[in-house]
Amino acid sequence: MNLTLLTPENRSEFDLRISKIRSEMERAELDAILVGSTSNIFYISGGIFRGYIYVSLNDAPLFFMIPPSEFDSEMVIQIHKPEQIPDILASTGYGKSRRLGMEYSDLPYSDIVRLQKAFSGIETADCSGIMRRARSVKTDYEIGLMRQDGIRQVSVYSQIKHCYSPDMTDLEFQIEIERILRREGCLGYLRAAGTRMELNMGSVLAGPNADEPSPYDFSMGGAGIDASLPVGASGEIMKPGMAVMVDMNGGFNGYQTDITRCWTIGEPTEKALTAHEVSRTILRDLESFARPGVEVGELYRRALRLEEDAGLADYFMGHRHKVQFIGHGVGIELNEQPVVMSHNREPLKKNMTIALEPKFVLPEIGAVGVENTYLVTENGLENLTVLHEELVSL
Amino acid sequence: MNLTLLTPENRSEFDLRISKIRSEMERAELDAILVGSTSNIFYISGGIFRGYIYVSLNDAPLFFMIPPSEFDSEMVIQIHKPEQIPDILASTGYGKSRRLGMEYSDLPYSDIVRLQKAFSGIETADCSGIMRRARSVKTDYEIGLMRQDGIRQVSVYSQIKHCYSPDMTDLEFQIEIERILRREGCLGYLRAAGTRMELNMGSVLAGPNADEPSPYDFSMGGAGIDASLPVGASGEIMKPGMAVMVDMNGGFNGYQTDITRCWTIGEPTEKALTAHEVSRTILRDLESFARPGVEVGELYRRALRLEEDAGLADYFMGHRHKVQFIGHGVGIELNEQPVVMSHNREPLKKNMTIALEPKFVLPEIGAVGVENTYLVTENGLENLTVLHEELVSL
Repeated sequence: MNLTLLTPENRSEFDLRISKIRSEMERAELDAILVGSTSNIFYISGGIFRGYIYVSLNDAPLFFMIPPSEFDSEMVIQIHKPEQIPDILASTGYGKSRRLGMEYSDLPYSDIVRLQKAFSGIETADCSGIMRRARSVKTDYEIGLMRQDGIRQVSVYSQIKHCYSPDMTDLEFQIEIERILRREGCLGYLRAAGTRMELNMGSVLAGPNADEPSPYDFSMGGAGIDASLPVGASGEIMKPGMAVMVDMNGGFNGYQTDITRCWTIGEPTEKALTAHEVSRTILRDLESFARPGVEVGELYRRALRLEEDAGLADYFMGHRHKVQFIGHGVGIELNEQPVVMSHNREPLKKNMTIALEPKFVLPEIGAVGVENTYLVTENGLENLTVLHEELVSL
Repeated sequence: MNLTLLTPENRSEFDLRISKIRSEMERAELDAILVGSTSNIFYISGGIFRGYIYVSLNDAPLFFMIPPSEFDSEMVIQIHKPEQIPDILASTGYGKSRRLGMEYSDLPYSDIVRLQKAFSGIETADCSGIMRRARSVKTDYEIGLMRQDGIRQVSVYSQIKHCYSPDMTDLEFQIEIERILRREGCLGYLRAAGTRMELNMGSVLAGPNADEPSPYDFSMGGAGIDASLPVGASGEIMKPGMAVMVDMNGGFNGYQTDITRCWTIGEPTEKALTAHEVSRTILRDLESFARPGVEVGELYRRALRLEEDAGLADYFMGHRHKVQFIGHGVGIELNEQPVVMSHNREPLKKNMTIALEPKFVLPEIGAVGVENTYLVTENGLENLTVLHEELVSL
């Protein structure tokens, strides 16, 4: 077991995260939480184990580990099943929780009901939301990891042009990119919240396939190559006149950045160039406009005004099927808070990390646009994924 | 939307699956179920969409689709949120369910509570179990798809030797195998039940890394290359004397087969050869012993006797950390029913598909053993993944 935050050298980072969680617990009037999802276990412990973490407002956090559990820490208690936890808490001198948070959105119904039975008599409430909020503002340590992701993902993206050869299918192109990603250290696994984010290592969309609707919660669609996974590359040969959008996995260290870049087969058409430049204009506008205190929904509405002024409303964020966001928080999970959509009234906060992806689907040509991952600073957005953005021929 | 089972030519297959589900519903005293997990949506519809499927004992199944939902069928009803479903059922003339099944193990707590509120006043019960049981016995159509998976995965495995070059790390070796898999049509996504099955495209375990415990529900461990995904290849160079176990994704069409083969770097040691041959002996024994009506747990106990007679108890199914199963159902999900473990008293049924994987972890050498995916027939097990099993040098 490698629980990186339970080591003495990372004690201050561990304490910082616990204090962030406790602030959210206080706002939500929870005096304790019990979490067991891998994303939240990784956030608190810096590793993955089987079991649960108990965080209360006043007592030290406890790690209830089910074997394998070879980790030496005074915070770790070995258990075989979660039903043991209440008795252990009592015998350890921990007071009974008055209102105990559990991850209603991150664990199956059967898991939560089992925990509620184990803690019978204690009121429970959702803590998925407070964990998402705590995680939405990154610590300096987390920002350091995301900077590393950005550097490594940019390094891969700078090699993408070399993955192409004429008459390739979109899928063959994607497979060569996957190989470069993996060789640069990409873990090849997408950690995302919810049950609607099935994907392999990413999405390459070429030509009309970009306009095929997908049932998943991604910004773009694509038919996929099989009815069981209807998203992304469709296996069609990429032909002159097509735009090719590459939006691949950027996870190297438990965190991830999110980059989209586009190319064309043959010279780009006027229409593709125009839409692509509007995407870049939107990013430049938001990079200087967005800062702590700005309402998140205003980013979406500014983007909408800019693309409508350009006469591109039919194509923005999809054509046959449109999504209602232009960006999202990113970190341990691909789809973190905040979601950049019109009715999100929460303020941007310093050290949030967000991916902005104003994209257009031009039905005959394909998808164009740019996505970068940004750090929210006092002076605007800092791009963690700096890399040429021009729409050029592959 | 490509819902392959809602087309006229697949009507009999669709009807067959509905009748299998209804049999399980009757046994569980459910008069209707409402399912929304992707695995069960794919099982019933042959595709993926956003929404829910309502199956009752007496009325026609209904597909409640949330956009994008471009699919033409009299069984499809467009909705925007699940709260609309009860009113639509009433206005369509469907009687109120007396006991409504929902997927307690496959959907988050928040999703189930939302559905329960929408159906307030109606008793709900778990239907995850009945869907697992219905899916555990495959139809001829499904067996056809799994035969295809077997052929394609075997084709990839027969090329694995060519992926190796001296002084490679386990991870570099895995990446070359991933590329071949993807080029042969592997979808590159692992569909599995539960929250404890995080993995990229599979597991390559070389040398002592095979004895590193992992918190996931896989048969073998491995440290992985990052604390956020502690499973599988560790990035170490593969050296003479090591055994290398390859257990990679076999999903090509919504179903999957599961194959493990092992090689050595340099000539295999006597100990590795011996343990590997015991794995093959166990498979040969179970292939002829297992047939419809045999208690599943007896397969496990027979395997245990064989490996104990060979004096290998310390190494069977792990060394530092052992798992308590030697096989599992496989199909849409990697971890289907039945689980081949000692206390499973259910009988094997004709047309179940199971992966059997008696494996050994030899701490200094690595993991050895063979895994095949089998179809349960009247005459024993039919191997869907026939391929040389000898432990030889890479």
